[in-house]
Parts: sequence; structure tokens; C-alpha cells
Amino acid sequence: MTNHKLKVTTIGGGSSYTPELVEGFIKRYDEFPLTELWLVDIEEGREKLEIVGNLAKRMIEKAGLPIDIHLTLDRKAALKDADFVTTQFRVGLLNAREKDERIPLKYGVLGQETNGPGGLFKGLRTIPVILDICRDMEELCPDAWLINFTNPAGMVTEAVLRYSNIEKVIGLCNVPIGMEMGIAKLLDVDHSRIRIDFAGLNHMVYGLDIYVDGVSVKEEVIEKLSDPKNSSFVKNIDGMGWEPEFIQALDALTCPYHMYYYKSQEMVDKALESSKNEGTRAEIVQKLEDELFELYKDEKLNTKPPQLEERGGAYYSDAAVRLITSIYTDKRDIQPVNTKNNGAIASIPADSAVEISSIITKDGPIPLTMGDIPVAARGLVQQIKSFERVAAQAAVTGDYNTAILALAINPLTPSDTIAKEIVDEMLEAHKDYLPQFFQSETVN
Amino acid sequence: MTNHKLKVTTIGGGSSYTPELVEGFIKRYDEFPLTELWLVDIEEGREKLEIVGNLAKRMIEKAGLPIDIHLTLDRKAALKDADFVTTQFRVGLLNAREKDERIPLKYGVLGQETNGPGGLFKGLRTIPVILDICRDMEELCPDAWLINFTNPAGMVTEAVLRYSNIEKVIGLCNVPIGMEMGIAKLLDVDHSRIRIDFAGLNHMVYGLDIYVDGVSVKEEVIEKLSDPKNSSFVKNIDGMGWEPEFIQALDALTCPYHMYYYKSQEMVDKALESSKNEGTRAEIVQKLEDELFELYKDEKLNTKPPQLEERGGAYYSDAAVRLITSIYTDKRDIQPVNTKNNGAIASIPADSAVEISSIITKDGPIPLTMGDIPVAARGLVQQIKSFERVAAQAAVTGDYNTAILALAINPLTPSDTIAKEIVDEMLEAHKDYLPQFFQSETVN
Amino acid sequence: MTNHKLKVTTIGGGSSYTPELVEGFIKRYDEFPLTELWLVDIEEGREKLEIVGNLAKRMIEKAGLPIDIHLTLDRKAALKDADFVTTQFRVGLLNAREKDERIPLKYGVLGQETNGPGGLFKGLRTIPVILDICRDMEELCPDAWLINFTNPAGMVTEAVLRYSNIEKVIGLCNVPIGMEMGIAKLLDVDHSRIRIDFAGLNHMVYGLDIYVDGVSVKEEVIEKLSDPKNSSFVKNIDGMGWEPEFIQALDALTCPYHMYYYKSQEMVDKALESSKNEGTRAEIVQKLEDELFELYKDEKLNTKPPQLEERGGAYYSDAAVRLITSIYTDKRDIQPVNTKNNGAIASIPADSAVEISSIITKDGPIPLTMGDIPVAARGLVQQIKSFERVAAQAAVTGDYNTAILALAINPLTPSDTIAKEIVDEMLEAHKDYLPQFFQSETVN
Amino acid sequence: MTNHKLKVTTIGGGSSYTPELVEGFIKRYDEFPLTELWLVDIEEGREKLEIVGNLAKRMIEKAGLPIDIHLTLDRKAALKDADFVTTQFRVGLLNAREKDERIPLKYGVLGQETNGPGGLFKGLRTIPVILDICRDMEELCPDAWLINFTNPAGMVTEAVLRYSNIEKVIGLCNVPIGMEMGIAKLLDVDHSRIRIDFAGLNHMVYGLDIYVDGVSVKEEVIEKLSDPKNSSFVKNIDGMGWEPEFIQALDALTCPYHMYYYKSQEMVDKALESSKNEGTRAEIVQKLEDELFELYKDEKLNTKPPQLEERGGAYYSDAAVRLITSIYTDKRDIQPVNTKNNGAIASIPADSAVEISSIITKDGPIPLTMGDIPVAARGLVQQIKSFERVAAQAAVTGDYNTAILALAINPLTPSDTIAKEIVDEMLEAHKDYLPQFFQSETVN
Repeated sequence: MTNHKLKVTTIGGGSSYTPELVEGFIKRYDEFPLTELWLVDIEEGREKLEIVGNLAKRMIEKAGLPIDIHLTLDRKAALKDADFVTTQFRVGLLNAREKDERIPLKYGVLGQETNGPGGLFKGLRTIPVILDICRDMEELCPDAWLINFTNPAGMVTEAVLRYSNIEKVIGLCNVPIGMEMGIAKLLDVDHSRIRIDFAGLNHMVYGLDIYVDGVSVKEEVIEKLSDPKNSSFVKNIDGMGWEPEFIQALDALTCPYHMYYYKSQEMVDKALESSKNEGTRAEIVQKLEDELFELYKDEKLNTKPPQLEERGGAYYSDAAVRLITSIYTDKRDIQPVNTKNNGAIASIPADSAVEISSIITKDGPIPLTMGDIPVAARGLVQQIKSFERVAAQAAVTGDYNTAILALAINPLTPSDTIAKEIVDEMLEAHKDYLPQFFQSETVN
Repeated sequence: MTNHKLKVTTIGGGSSYTPELVEGFIKRYDEFPLTELWLVDIEEGREKLEIVGNLAKRMIEKAGLPIDIHLTLDRKAALKDADFVTTQFRVGLLNAREKDERIPLKYGVLGQETNGPGGLFKGLRTIPVILDICRDMEELCPDAWLINFTNPAGMVTEAVLRYSNIEKVIGLCNVPIGMEMGIAKLLDVDHSRIRIDFAGLNHMVYGLDIYVDGVSVKEEVIEKLSDPKNSSFVKNIDGMGWEPEFIQALDALTCPYHMYYYKSQEMVDKALESSKNEGTRAEIVQKLEDELFELYKDEKLNTKPPQLEERGGAYYSDAAVRLITSIYTDKRDIQPVNTKNNGAIASIPADSAVEISSIITKDGPIPLTMGDIPVAARGLVQQIKSFERVAAQAAVTGDYNTAILALAINPLTPSDTIAKEIVDEMLEAHKDYLPQFFQSETVN
Repeated sequence: MTNHKLKVTTIGGGSSYTPELVEGFIKRYDEFPLTELWLVDIEEGREKLEIVGNLAKRMIEKAGLPIDIHLTLDRKAALKDADFVTTQFRVGLLNAREKDERIPLKYGVLGQETNGPGGLFKGLRTIPVILDICRDMEELCPDAWLINFTNPAGMVTEAVLRYSNIEKVIGLCNVPIGMEMGIAKLLDVDHSRIRIDFAGLNHMVYGLDIYVDGVSVKEEVIEKLSDPKNSSFVKNIDGMGWEPEFIQALDALTCPYHMYYYKSQEMVDKALESSKNEGTRAEIVQKLEDELFELYKDEKLNTKPPQLEERGGAYYSDAAVRLITSIYTDKRDIQPVNTKNNGAIASIPADSAVEISSIITKDGPIPLTMGDIPVAARGLVQQIKSFERVAAQAAVTGDYNTAILALAINPLTPSDTIAKEIVDEMLEAHKDYLPQFFQSETVN
Repeated sequence: MTNHKLKVTTIGGGSSYTPELVEGFIKRYDEFPLTELWLVDIEEGREKLEIVGNLAKRMIEKAGLPIDIHLTLDRKAALKDADFVTTQFRVGLLNAREKDERIPLKYGVLGQETNGPGGLFKGLRTIPVILDICRDMEELCPDAWLINFTNPAGMVTEAVLRYSNIEKVIGLCNVPIGMEMGIAKLLDVDHSRIRIDFAGLNHMVYGLDIYVDGVSVKEEVIEKLSDPKNSSFVKNIDGMGWEPEFIQALDALTCPYHMYYYKSQEMVDKALESSKNEGTRAEIVQKLEDELFELYKDEKLNTKPPQLEERGGAYYSDAAVRLITSIYTDKRDIQPVNTKNNGAIASIPADSAVEISSIITKDGPIPLTMGDIPVAARGLVQQIKSFERVAAQAAVTGDYNTAILALAINPLTPSDTIAKEIVDEMLEAHKDYLPQFFQSETVN
């Protein structure tokens, strides 16, 4: 396969995460002989693209690999003949995230990037852009895989499946890999020996069973998770621990985001307090990013700086390169991804996106047939799927009422009236990034 | 059909509602020639049974009908060879209801008889008794229909379908008929001209379409419901009105209990305030009941006193006799009942109980095929179905952890920790009526 | 409802069946006050239309009812503002039927009007015409109900559901009512006391249960059907009797057309013999029709002549008027019709046509939820559904290969080679009525 | 993993196929370090077991591997602590097969080992024995995998899934691997580069898509299969070729056994002729077997003799060892197996056995989600599934009527009467191996 072009295009290439992605490509070069990496950004992100792009070039140079790094604001040129397209952009930057986090809190509602009002508005801003990219891909690189990391990844994948002609799309999240790492630590075994049967939705995924070397250890894990002796450790995984009785009866592994639902009260309280003290997550991240870009500017730096790990999103880029490599090599290993359900989870429509353990082949992920998720978990999963579908519809149509409906049916929203108030304030706040809601006289 | 015995047995016969039921039988005697009405109660309710039973006898005497009224504490004798069994009992009486309403409020959680913690505990107390009645029916009147009004009627019907051998069971609620009455008023047409396609669960039922004389008027109804000019009227139906945008986008008729979910914040606030001022609903009802029984004692009274209407439960008994009559006469009219789904609503398991418009035949209700409920409503319906199933399991097994899980997954519960605290306090408070949780050393 | 126009349009009005239809309208005039009956036909059928139309006029006159009979070749005028449209036409007349019956027999394959090659070719000729009528109806009478009697009624209904914009369509067949009549005779009870739970496809319908006065008598019926003492009677119902062991294990009532599948050998043999002796069914019917039209010409005749009963199709028109009346009066009685499945039979797609007991309301038929048909019957039903769907696709596309595929997957076809030979000969024979297969150079 | 016991038990160890299996274990020893191979047979097969077992020992000795070969008639001892159990026995030996092939032909019905009457009776004889083995496994080696090659493999797998407590069961067939080999030859590429998406039932499996190096070549393959120039080659794969129009419209790859259904006439004719000339397949195989055992007796023989290939069943044992190795090493390659559907094919019940491309993991096969099989193929698949289920029920209950029903609904049976006649003659002929049908007075 020498001399074969292998082109990856990363949209939102100016992100502070890019060095991790580059490191991933360097590490897996033997399996995935990348020849061109195109980092694309928009005018607003030109400076960051330059800084991080130059660091990427230095990293490649140090590794001594024949990979060309292209920095560009021309998305079409970047997409032309790409083999893989990854998306990691943030419409409205961290400034928009701060609004997603702060505004809902005024109404006593959780402010978070992928759940509740924040998730809705991030979706409303992101989905039209993704669908636009899909249209470009149809024309410029119809055989490429779209690997989307942009949150809310579940809603975005659902929107691509329902509203675009792109079928080769995978939503990717670092939550499942993080759960595997946590369980590996809890059991003190190497990560490679752990396998979890993941099933559910993005940021709403359950571990239906957990194996070490193929032998189920679910009972032992649940016992450990509910043992007060492990509580400080568990909090590290989950942020808080569950009541032992709850997790034992649930009989499935939760993901950290379940806390927003099964501990909604405590999580709102915590968010309110944080927002008053250390600031919202957006503000904290903004500071980290500023520091990171200061580091990245250093022309002597030619590796991923360790400070990047504090930024969050651990394993993200690693997960991405692992996924891309498995598609490229038809590796058929099992990875949790967001993909079309197709019968794998009985109670979710066959044409909806799910987050599920899948075999990764040359032809994409094939979800493992799971039967169904447990009765106790099924309702919440369906509720979030309803939310995702109505939200995607609002994003595509720009319909004001549909946006209110989406928020009102979200389990974190206490009432239709509050839903309306929040939507009104957030529509105004994000006006610049929501043109579909402000065309002609159709709104309000 | 002269000389044919036709026997109805009413468990919880000492209820203040009984005069309404008796009035229903008198009104429909031509179609449903009842010969024996057995009112059964337990020792605790002996005095009420005497009072209300004697009123029933005077009502029948006044109507000049050959119906024998039997008052008894012997349930088995009452069930023997019954044609219809109706259940309207309340385990623990209004005193238990008061606890269901007050205790959750201490934790900031809605206290209500059929939703949230109150619904859970009413289910935990009621289901074992219903299953016991089912076992008696199998032996004593295997061909009888069980018409259950006892709340939470959805959870109870689910439990009978899953955990008994009785297949001839129907859960009945006055909410759908109340919705029809409200819409008739809103449109100023006679009730008989209205038809609503009901689909969902008990106290979680939606009107998918609304017809006057067979022509859909849904659009007009939704418009009227969202017109501020009608707000005071709408509040009469719904307790509060919806945001116009919300109800328009939902594009379905809600039931009053939806307010606990789509206006959860406001409803908790209101319940908290009421509990401080006029008292909980149980306390108000207790006073009404005391007054009613004073009236019932009057030996000159031989009709249903108008004061009974304030008691709530309007149309309940009328709905019951209407249902029984349609089964008896194979009338094949359409009535909303709780019955086995059997494919009528695509996203709900075929073997689960749903509340749905059904044709009422001699062989019971046949649910109308509805396709599916709208995406926006589907999630919440599934979540309540999950709750009902886990709660029914807890009721049957007496498993402490399962009870906590049931409450923790209920959308009105803010966290697993609060779920546990509430379960602990309520288990203790209702100890006498929850023997399944207090056997040997298996609890805590 | 006086002075209200009520218009029925009958396409294929020149059919010899029309007097029965007219008799039906006369009999049910009290419930269904028809004001205009439009009999439409094509140029080829002008003479028959005149003859039968004049008889219809004399019948109405004799009955003394204010119903106007219109005879026309202008389909659009006839459809304008119709309330009900019934279709009973035969593309290519009995001459085409004869070919459907004779040609397959040359290849040792059953020649029959609605099954096997005959059914396929009748569908290929009929479906484009029906879809054309649907397009006219959309424009001229969008609120009308289309009641289709034209065979193959199941395939035609499937085609209308999949390939037209008409949703108000019902396929009607006299087979189920004939089964009810047969069972009534077998049990010696009045027809009105019988109810059968019908489920399956047109000419492939099973009775899942059988009731007298609402009490299941299936066991007794199956026993009688398998008792050799009743064999001559049973043959009258079924044409032949089943092996007792077979029908007992099947544990469901079959329809007469099941013989083509569960006795395919004997039925081909019989058809071969008949075709040599008394002629094909088409030839026999042709003679009957000629005789009938001779009778119809008699200007003194003003009632349906008894000889019509020999023509077959007993109960057909009666069934049609019964159905129309129940829609008009919102009667909600149970009638077996061909309609969209919508979850009523679990193993058939929700959007496919099934023949099923349904409640007949103002809004059309609502199929009774049946759970599923028995495992033993399920496969054959699916196979015929596959055939119907592929055949409908061939009819719409005019694709030669698809027509061969449709026939090759039909259970009565012994091989793909024979399928091709038959399709080739029949395409040629029916060329004039299959323009979709003979456009430009696309065929062969 | 040194010193680890790894035990395989082969029931029907005296089969002439055993040398192939042994060769498979030798070839894959590096991956699958077998320590004990137990060959079990019954008293009737003692001599063959001795002969073939001694050859196996010589083969192992020649290979120089530390594998112990045990020959025994004691099934329980052989099963004790096995890791894998393979079944390749034949109840009634080739003598029974001859009856399965000859008797139906007398009635003009196909006589074949796995389809029609032969398939039914092989199932009736085999299923009770397999279920007995399952009961032993529960007790003696509950963690072992049961790999069944015994035909009819689909029906047997269905029976194990429905009527035993063994969940670790896989049915295996060499048909799919043969199809891959055929396609590889047709395209002149190495077998390893071919992948087919298999979906359907055993001996009724379709290739929904075909890939070379992950790129779909279905269109090209179908074109080649329908090109007369390739006909002699195609006949080699399929026995006969399809009509080009048929296979093009079907748009899926068939398996050789489809000829019994889509060319049923020709196949019966061919079987009739063969039975008169060269003898039935059983007789041919008997001769081959006799010759093989003569060879096997030769004490100098220490490899699989090339003559075994003529015996048929090519790739069978190779497929078996490949499957076992992938489970053992958690290889996660894709192999077609018979396993529980679990949602992978939408129109087949989740709990039924299907033959489907699956990922082979340590925890068994995970079927690839396929959406659904094409409409045109769906009906026949359902019909065979109905047959398999009713046949399995007859095998377990020994119910005479159910056996007749099973045969009457098989698409190869021309009528219920012929079904009964064949069942009667075959029950008598196989009496010794069908005790469940001859207990007390319950039969006939």
C-alpha cells in the first residue's frame, strides 16, 4: 500500500485538542499510514489554527513521518477526496458554552453542555452546520467516513441519519472508554482485559454486562461500586456515588452523565454553587485553553504538552484514531460508537441512532444485538431519544414551538412555562448562530 | 332473559361512592337487569358498609326494582358465581392517603395519590390484595370480569396481567370521560357527539385525535386550548393552562395529570402550599366523607345526595356501569379502558397494560389500533411504564432495593438518595399494610 | 338528513352483479338513503351497461324510492363529489379470465383467477386502472371511500396503500361472510349469532376463533369439520374436506382458497379435468352471463332474477352495502375487510393490507388486535404477502424481471423456468391490457 | 496457558468425517492447543469407532502433538468437563437416510435428507437425542459450547433454543462456506478476500451482499451468475442455473438448497431418475463409506485419505475447527452460523434460530444486524421457519397430528392427504427410532 494517499480532514482543526489527535496518528502510523492531515477552521479561528497547526507540524517533524499538514479556511478544498472527516468544532466557541451553562441556572435548571437547555441549544447551533458539511461531503468525498466528536453527539448523529444523505457517519464519545478505564482501575486489571456491553444513547449509555477476559464480573463490580469503602474512588469515576440499593437493583453500569438524571437535584445545586465560586465549566475551560495556546506558541514545543490532559476529553482523540484505524484495517474489534440501531436494541426504532458496542469493520460499525435494555432503564432512554428527535427537528426547521416542545419534554425541565422562558432568553442570546429561527416574520 | 341471575360483587362496598354506582345500576336496569348486588368490606369498614348499604337498599326500593342488596364481610361468599367484580377499596383508608401526600412533600417531592411516591406506595399496598382477589376469583367465579377502579389503576392492571391468572380484567378511570366532557363544553356540543382517540397509560393518556360527529376537530380544539381568552375555562379542565406554543407543537390533547410532569415545579409548589393551608387532598376528602356518611345515615334519604359530586370521582361509577352494560349486551361502543396493548400502540410491549380507546364486546375490550403515539410523548409514556413495571415487581416480591429503584426512576423523584429516604420513611409509616416487606430478616 | 345528497359511483356498472347491488341498496334504504347511483363503464361495455342499467331503473321504480340511476361512460363525471366509489370491473372481460385459467394449465400449474399465474396477471392488468381511478378520486371526490371488490382484492388493496394517495380504501371479499354462513349451517344456528375472528390475507384468511353468542365453539367446529359423517356437507363449504389430523392440529378455520395451497396437487388435477370437460370457470361463467343478460333485457323484469345466484359471488353485493351502511351510520359492527394492518397482526408489517375482522366506523375500519396468527399458518401467509408485494411492484413498474420473480416465488409455481415460460406466454396473450410492459425497448 | 486442559467431545465419533476433524485440530493446534479429544459412539457404531479412532491416533502421533484420543461408548464420561461438544451423529445410520429419500418419492414428493419429509423425519429422530445430550451437558459440562453439525441443523438449533436449558449452542453448516468458495472461484480471487452477508435459515440462506476486499460486488456477481457463458460453472455451484431474470430481480445470492424450492419440479424429477439409476444419495454414500472404512483400517494410513473429499461435507470439519478456535481465542472474525436471531433480522422472532453472519467471540456468536431480508425472499424463509417450529414441536411431543401438520405446511408437500400418507408410512418405517410416537395408546 505504499504511495497510497490517505487523507484525513479535521473540521475545527484549530481546537486545543488537535495535538492529541496528531499524537494519535503518530502512535498508530504503522497501522494507519496517514499521508495528509487537513486542519480546517473558520475565519474566527484563524489564529488558533495557525498556532496549533504549527505545533502539529513540529510534532510530525519530530516523529519523522511523511505526513503533510495542511492549514486552511477553505472547507471545500479540505474535504475534496478525503478518506475520513472528523468534526470537533464548536459553533460560537466557549462564549456560547458559557451562555448554555449560565442562562438555565437562572431558572433553577441545569446548565450543561450536552444535557437539558444547554444540550438543546448546542444542538440547534451545531446541526445546521453538520448538515451543511454533509452536503459538501456528498459532492466532494462521497466515500469518506464522517467521524463526529462534536456534542451533543447523539443528537447530531440522529440528525445526520434522518436529515442528510450521508450514511457513513459515526458519532464518537469518550464516555464509554472512560467507563472501561474506571472499571479497569476498580478491579486493578489492565484495560485491554475489560469488555463492557454498552447499550443506550450518547451520554445515556448503560453497561449491560462487564467482562474480564470474557468472564462476566458484573455482580462483583456492582458490589464494589456499592461498597462505601470504595466511595472516594467511585466518586472519581462517577462524580458521586449511587445509593447501594439503587445500583444493585438497577443491575447495570451507569455512565457519569446519569447523575444529571438520577441525582438531578444534587447536580443543579452543585452547578449553582460552582457558577458562583469557581465559575462555570466554560469559564474554567477558557482559562485552560488560554494557557494551552500560550504553551502551543512555543516554537520549541514539539510534543503534546501534559497540561492538555487537564482540559478534559481524555481518550477522545485516542478513541478517534483507534476507530479510524479499525475501519481502515477492517480490524473487527469491538468499540462503543453512535450508529444506526438496526434492531440491536429492541425497544428503540431501527432507524434511530444509539450508542452501542459494535464490531468495527471496513464497512463501518455493526452493532452487537443486545436484545433489550433493562425495563428500569428503558423509560429514561426513550425520553432522551424523544428529546433528541424533537430537538433535531427544531434545529432543521427553525420552528419556535418545536424548540419549546423539545425543552419541555426534557426530563431536566420543570415546566412548559420555564421551558418557554429559557428558550426565549437563549434564542436571543445565541441569535447570531441560529439564523434558522430568525428568518422573515415566522418567529414569535 | 327473565329469571336469569345477574350478580355484581363490589369489593370496598362501604365506599362513599357506592350510591353513585347504585344509581348507575338503576338508570341502566333496562339494559342490564341486575338481580344481586353484593357489597363486601372488611371488618374495619363494617360501620360504613352498614350505612351505605342501607342507603343502597332504600334507593333500590324507591326505584321499585327486583335487585337484592347483600352486605357482607365474607369475600368468598360474595365472589361465588359473580358475573362482574368491581374493586373500589382503599388499603389503609384515607389515613394512608394522607401519609402518601404528606411524607413526600417533606422531601420537596410531589405527594399525590397515584403519581410519584404516593402512587408507588398505594401500589405496594394494593397489588397484593388485588392478586389475592384474583386467586379467589379463579376458584369462585372464573368467568367473571374484574373491573378495577382502585388506583393506581394502570399499575394494578399491569400487575394483574403479569402476576395473576385472571385475563378478564379491565382497569377503569374517569379521566378520559372527563376529558370528553371538558371538550364537549369547550366546543359547546353534546357529549355524545364527541369521540377522542385515547392512547397512553392511566393518568398519562393522550388524545391523539378529537372528532365531532366523526369529523376531526383537533386543530380547532388545540387552538382554543391555547387561546388566552379561554384560559379560565381551560384551567377548569386542566387545573392550569399550557403555554400555547407547547400544546400546539405537542399536537395532542393532554390529561389533567400531565401537569404533574410538564409543570412539575408549579405542582409541587401548589401542593406544598395547600398542605399548609387547606390541608392535603386526603384531609379535605376525609371531611367530605364524614359529612356524606352523616347524610347517608338519614333513613329518609333514598337517592344519591348531590353533595357526593363534590367528593370527586365524577362519572366514575357511571363509567363503570356503562362498561359493564356494554360487555353484557355486546354493545361494541368505543370506551377508553386499561387493557392489554396487543399491538395497538407500536412502541409499547404487546403484553403491557395501556389506556386506550377500545371496542367493548361480550369478549371484553378490543383496543383500537393506533399506530404509535407521537414521538414527543413517547418518552414520558415509556418512563411511566418502566416505573409501573418495576413498582409492580416490588409489590409482588417485597424487595426493598426494587422499591427504591422504582421510585428513583420515577420522573418526579429528584435523586436516588431522596428516593431512598422517602422509601424508608414511607415503608415504616405504612408498615401494617406492607407485610411483604417485613418478613423475616430480608429487609435492610 | 333529508335532502342530503348521497352519491354512490360503481365502476364496472355494466356487470351482471349490479342487480344484486341495487337490491342491497333498496333493502337498506332506511339506513342508507341513497340519492344517486352512477353506473359507469367503458365503451366496450356500453351495451351491457344499458341493459343492466335499465333493469336497475325498473327495480328502483318498483321499490318506489327516490334514487336516481345514472348510466355513463364518463368516469370523471361519475366520480365528481361521490360519497362512495365501488369497483367491480374486469379488465379484458371474461375472455382474459379464460386465458388466466387455461394458459397455466398447459404448464401443469393451477389456472385460477386470483391465485398463481392467473392472480398475478389479473393484478398486472387491474392495478394500473385502480391507481388511475385513485388519481381521479383525489381530484374529484377526495373524501369518498373506495370500496374495491375487484380481484385480486388483497393485492389491489396493497397496491392502493403503497402506490396511491388514497387512504380511504377498503378491499372487500365474500369469502369470510361465506365462511360464517357455512359455520351457521354446520351448527344449525342463525347467521347473526356467529362471530369469527378473521385474520390473514384475502383468499388466505383464517378463522382464529369462532363464537356462537360470544362463546367460543372452535373446538366443536373443528371436531365437526373433521368428522367423516359431515364430509359431504363440509365439501359443500370447502370443496373438499381436510384430513382430520391436519385440521385438528392446525386448530384454526380455513377458507376455501386454502385448498389451492394445502391440496395443490388435487386442485391442479381437478382444474385440468374440468378444463377438458365442462370448460374453465370463465367459460361456464360466460354462458351464465349470456343467459343473465338475456333475462335482464326483458322489460317486464323489475327484480333481481334468482338465476343470478348461480353466477357465484353470493353475498358480495350484500356485503358491500352492509359495509357502506356501517360506515355511513357509524354502526361499529364487526366485519371482515381488507385494510391496513397497523399492528393488529404482529408478524405482518404495520403498513401492509390484511384481511381482518374490523370495527366499521364512520372513520373506516379499525382492525381488531389479534396478537398473531398461529405459527403453522404464519409462513404461508407471509409467502402470499411477499407475492402480493412483488406482484404489485411489477404492475406499477412494468418490469419484466419483477413479474417473473413474483411468479417464481408464488408457492403454486414449480420453478423459475416454468415461471418465465408462463410469464412470456401470458404477457403476449394479455398484451393489449398490459401497456406498462410494452413501452419502448425496455422489455426482453 | 500451558498445562491447561482443553477437552473436545465428539458425539458420533465413529463417523467417516472424523479424520477431517482431526486434521482440522492438527492444523490449528497453535491457536487451539487441544489436550483431549473424546470420540463417543453407541454400541451399534462400536466397530466404526474403533477403526476411525485408531486412524485418529495415528494421525496425532504422526503430527507429534500431545493430544490424547479417547474412544468410548460412555457418553457421560466423555461429556464430563468438556470445553466443546460437537455432534455429528446420525440416528438410524444411512439406512434411515435411504428411507427418508425413497419413501417420499413414491408419493411424488422430494426425498432429501434435510428438506421435506426426509428433513422432518430426520428431525423427529434427532431432536430427542440432542435434547438428551443437552440434559447431560447441563449436569456434566454446563460451561461447554455445543457445536451441532447434525442435520437438519436449523431445526435442531431451534429445538435446543426452545426446549432445552442450553444457551451455548451453535448450529453449523458447510453451505455458506461453500458459497464463499464458489464466489471466490467465479471471481477468481482468493477466498480470504470474499465476504458475504448471510441471512436466512439453515439450507435456506441468502447472500444479501457480497464483497471483495470490503467493496460490494453483488451486481457483478449476479450478472456473472446470469450470464449463459458461465452456466456450466454455475451449475457446479448450484447444481443448475437460475433463469437470469429471476436471479437479477431477486437481487440476492441463493444457496444450492434453494433449488428444492425455486425449481421443485425439476428437482423431484431428478431425484426420481437418480433413485432408479445410480441409487439414492444414501446408497451412494453408503458405498463411499464402506470404501473409506476399508482404507481407514490400513494401519499404515496416518493422514486423512484424499478419497474422503468425495464423501461430501467439504469444509465441514474445517468450518467446525475454525469456529471453535475463534471462540477459544475470542478472534471476532465473521462466520456464518445458526444462532438466536435477537433482532438481527427484523421479520424473524428474536428468539428463533437463524443462519447469519456473526462475529465469533469468546461469548459466542453475535449476529450482525441485517435490517431485513428482501421482501421477495421473506415469505419462503417464514414458511420454512413455521415448518421447523411445528416439526420441533412434533419431535418433542410425539404428537401424530402435529407431525402431519408439519409436513402439510412444508412447501414441498402437495397436499394434506399425501402428508398423512407419507407420515404414516415413515412412522412405521422409522418406528425403532421414534419411541415418542409409540407410547401407550396415544397414537392413531
